Amino acid sequence: MTDAHNDVSDWWTTSIIDMEPGKIFFRGHPIEQLIGNASFPEMIWLMTRGDLPTAGQAALLDAALVAAVDHGPQAPSIACARMAVTCGLPLNNAMGSAVNFLGDVHGGAGEQAVELYQKIDAEGGPDAVPEIVRLWRESRGKYVPGFGHRFHKPVDPRAPRLLGLVDEAAETGDVDGRFAAIGRAVEAELGRGRSAPVPMNIDGATAVIFAELGFPAPLARGIFCLSRSVGILAHAWEQSQQGGRNKGPTPPAYRWTYDGPPRGGASS
Amino acid sequence: MTDAHNDVSDWWTTSIIDMEPGKIFFRGHPIEQLIGNASFPEMIWLMTRGDLPTAGQAALLDAALVAAVDHGPQAPSIACARMAVTCGLPLNNAMGSAVNFLGDVHGGAGEQAVELYQKIDAEGGPDAVPEIVRLWRESRGKYVPGFGHRFHKPVDPRAPRLLGLVDEAAETGDVDGRFAAIGRAVEAELGRGRSAPVPMNIDGATAVIFAELGFPAPLARGIFCLSRSVGILAHAWEQSQQGGRNKGPTPPAYRWTYDGPPRGGASS
Amino acid sequence: MTDAHNDVSDWWTTSIIDMEPGKIFFRGHPIEQLIGNASFPEMIWLMTRGDLPTAGQAALLDAALVAAVDHGPQAPSIACARMAVTCGLPLNNAMGSAVNFLGDVHGGAGEQAVELYQKIDAEGGPDAVPEIVRLWRESRGKYVPGFGHRFHKPVDPRAPRLLGLVDEAAETGDVDGRFAAIGRAVEAELGRGRSAPVPMNIDGATAVIFAELGFPAPLARGIFCLSRSVGILAHAWEQSQQGGRNKGPTPPAYRWTYDGPPRGGASS
Amino acid sequence: MTDAHNDVSDWWTTSIIDMEPGKIFFRGHPIEQLIGNASFPEMIWLMTRGDLPTAGQAALLDAALVAAVDHGPQAPSIACARMAVTCGLPLNNAMGSAVNFLGDVHGGAGEQAVELYQKIDAEGGPDAVPEIVRLWRESRGKYVPGFGHRFHKPVDPRAPRLLGLVDEAAETGDVDGRFAAIGRAVEAELGRGRSAPVPMNIDGATAVIFAELGFPAPLARGIFCLSRSVGILAHAWEQSQQGGRNKGPTPPAYRWTYDGPPRGGASS
Repeated sequence: MTDAHNDVSDWWTTSIIDMEPGKIFFRGHPIEQLIGNASFPEMIWLMTRGDLPTAGQAALLDAALVAAVDHGPQAPSIACARMAVTCGLPLNNAMGSAVNFLGDVHGGAGEQAVELYQKIDAEGGPDAVPEIVRLWRESRGKYVPGFGHRFHKPVDPRAPRLLGLVDEAAETGDVDGRFAAIGRAVEAELGRGRSAPVPMNIDGATAVIFAELGFPAPLARGIFCLSRSVGILAHAWEQSQQGGRNKGPTPPAYRWTYDGPPRGGASS
Repeated sequence: MTDAHNDVSDWWTTSIIDMEPGKIFFRGHPIEQLIGNASFPEMIWLMTRGDLPTAGQAALLDAALVAAVDHGPQAPSIACARMAVTCGLPLNNAMGSAVNFLGDVHGGAGEQAVELYQKIDAEGGPDAVPEIVRLWRESRGKYVPGFGHRFHKPVDPRAPRLLGLVDEAAETGDVDGRFAAIGRAVEAELGRGRSAPVPMNIDGATAVIFAELGFPAPLARGIFCLSRSVGILAHAWEQSQQGGRNKGPTPPAYRWTYDGPPRGGASS
Repeated sequence: MTDAHNDVSDWWTTSIIDMEPGKIFFRGHPIEQLIGNASFPEMIWLMTRGDLPTAGQAALLDAALVAAVDHGPQAPSIACARMAVTCGLPLNNAMGSAVNFLGDVHGGAGEQAVELYQKIDAEGGPDAVPEIVRLWRESRGKYVPGFGHRFHKPVDPRAPRLLGLVDEAAETGDVDGRFAAIGRAVEAELGRGRSAPVPMNIDGATAVIFAELGFPAPLARGIFCLSRSVGILAHAWEQSQQGGRNKGPTPPAYRWTYDGPPRGGASS
Repeated sequence: MTDAHNDVSDWWTTSIIDMEPGKIFFRGHPIEQLIGNASFPEMIWLMTRGDLPTAGQAALLDAALVAAVDHGPQAPSIACARMAVTCGLPLNNAMGSAVNFLGDVHGGAGEQAVELYQKIDAEGGPDAVPEIVRLWRESRGKYVPGFGHRFHKPVDPRAPRLLGLVDEAAETGDVDGRFAAIGRAVEAELGRGRSAPVPMNIDGATAVIFAELGFPAPLARGIFCLSRSVGILAHAWEQSQQGGRNKGPTPPAYRWTYDGPPRGGASS
């Protein structure tokens, strides 16, 4: 590969993978050394970051990957995957349609929370929280990504568990803990003067992890996609075992409400 | 969730996930027990299989996940992801288009190899190889999935490493090793009477692992999709950092060869 | 374009489009002659077939395109599109996920019906229907593609209208009508000895059109995808105007039925 | 459908389609009246807008649909579709991955140009062009959507043809022509003081049509997706006839340039 310099080869330049017949290197590491030695989360880190994490860093990434795999059939991505297989799609296509769903609203809160935390960090840390949150709401609306949950009340069970692991990693020095402090400061700020708190949710907690680990914000969404792909796959597979053809969103007897123009047409 | 039995809720029945406000259970396990204790590969197993693997089984699954993450920008799935981000797509959409590519030809060889191995196993194991391979070729064509590689000659470096790990797991009793024997018997059969062997490739080797671990054949493709999603993400991200707008497959100066009807049209 | 012959340009050889700066030709026709003169259905024909249809042929293709645009929010493709936009996806991504759904079960019946009709035609036409239908059911199962409808009883309103247009086109000589005869013979065969007929549905009727017009079977699915993309777009757009965030398949209060293992996990 | 009012049916409320067994109405029109009477472009209008266009309006929409079907295999969407089928994907999945590509950069210029024109119109029309263009560039960057082309120099052959049709429609009163004037004023503004003009391209010209016809900006992208789907389908189908397995972006001999860390790994 390395001696094939010309404009065509250069068009596809990468620093991720290097190959020749019988040899594959990822970021310089021979594949046969990675197999059996690097864990899948470590491989995810190596591929997206270029180096290998410490064991403690890998454990935090592992926890974030485990936490977000699924939120049940009412999550649009999961419903999508289940309906897709009943249309005759193999698993790869069901996964393609469903991962596609993880856009700004369904899959973007983690990415946005990393952005928010990094902005707070750049402005001095927890003391900057009230001002940065105020500015965020002014420019982006009332909703602060990573906090509150429409279903899990009072608390999203994933968030405190994840934060606890960040605290442990801060004690061992695998992370420095400043984004955990920022996340908690945002939570405190959002709850100020309210009867009920607006607790950190899974997106806010995994964003703490991604920020602590130094991931750029867009990779928070990318890694969420890897995680949620597991739930997507599991539900697609389960649906394929249950059977069904052209499964709609509701049992067929329900149909839908029509609120358009009256029946007619001949005169139009 | 469990007390909401009616036709609408039943339409979305699942045995994967159970929820109530503040609580999430996967296959009966509370999420807060899984986070920090189950590894991501163990979570993949739990979600798709329903139980948890032994440590040795999880290690084999981990190795299969690590091995297949990427095969470079000439793999259509990887090229797809890189071009997609230059069209303005966020990572989730680039991943959606690219995972979609992992069809019968690009992502199906592992699934097909599991089918082949399982058929051989059902017919008595390695002794049945010549007959089953003959029948396979009669009905499905000359190409036997999981063997040979157009680039990695003489040997796909991932295959012997993965088989070595299967052998170790057979020694510890985590798997019984009979699919490794079947895979090797197929390799021997394919090389019989040829000057050059047709060695097992990554699909043949990961298929040994999936068959040893008891995965149904379609999940071999599903898990390959999880693995390849990592390379897809890494390349999409790298491309987004390199920039580029509407990146085509070749440098713009090359264009394409036109072999259609001559220019005209006025008379048509 | 035409003088850039080399291996890189040849890799992307096409007979569809020819370009140079300031000039675009489709199948040899200058784009500026097509714009304003060829209708969109004629352009679809030109692009997929290589020549231009007669006015009568174009009208039949037009009718097939109009007939299949939508079947309501319980069609998985339509539900997919509507949920997708509430996840934050722009229209192109909502369409991508939804068109993807049009697999063998949701979008393949037209293609399969064309195959069936062509097989009957190759075996001699309507007289061969009983035998070919028998063989089809033996090898592919009881369901004959293009006939019967789980909702539209007694008759799919689109089918007789489409067949009527084929009859008109046969009278003008734009098609020869033999596939209409074959389709009707299949309908008669399926109803033989039953109290209720198994009437031709939209897939069976559009398949008559595609077969009459000489489209290869896979393009029946491809053109169905173009048609259904219109409904997908319309519903995605309507949903974006209605609003909603992360719209699930049922109102949030319903959740789903869990039928998996009991809650536990500590012992596992 | 109309009498099934309850929360489940209401969740999927639509004004597009109304059904009962044997009957389908789109926007109130019986399907059997639309088939054979409404053209496919008229159906696209009815589905997305709610009413039917005049003949002159339909002709303009038709022209916009015809103009944008394809821009050759170096357009990422087209390359995507061609590679996809060689991975074993049927046409619907190849189309799904490829339509997905039509994001902000590849498919968004028309939508953005409609936004720009509408803003100019809201500020008083052509006289507001210099100020609005200045503000656009300040907030969105130097590139003004819909003008200039990296390949078609001096002129994109589709643009003047499309504008000519708008002028004809303005004469017949099917549109009022004020967005054509705005588009031309933007073109003049961009060329002011330059040696070479920055001529309107296809996106700028179709945006004039969409704005004249009263389409909301996002539908400009949606309708572009319908148009480009035709080229995507045609190329996917042509590639499937050419054959090929796992077609990469360049001939296999080229590979890619690696610019990452040196080979090593044992020490890491």
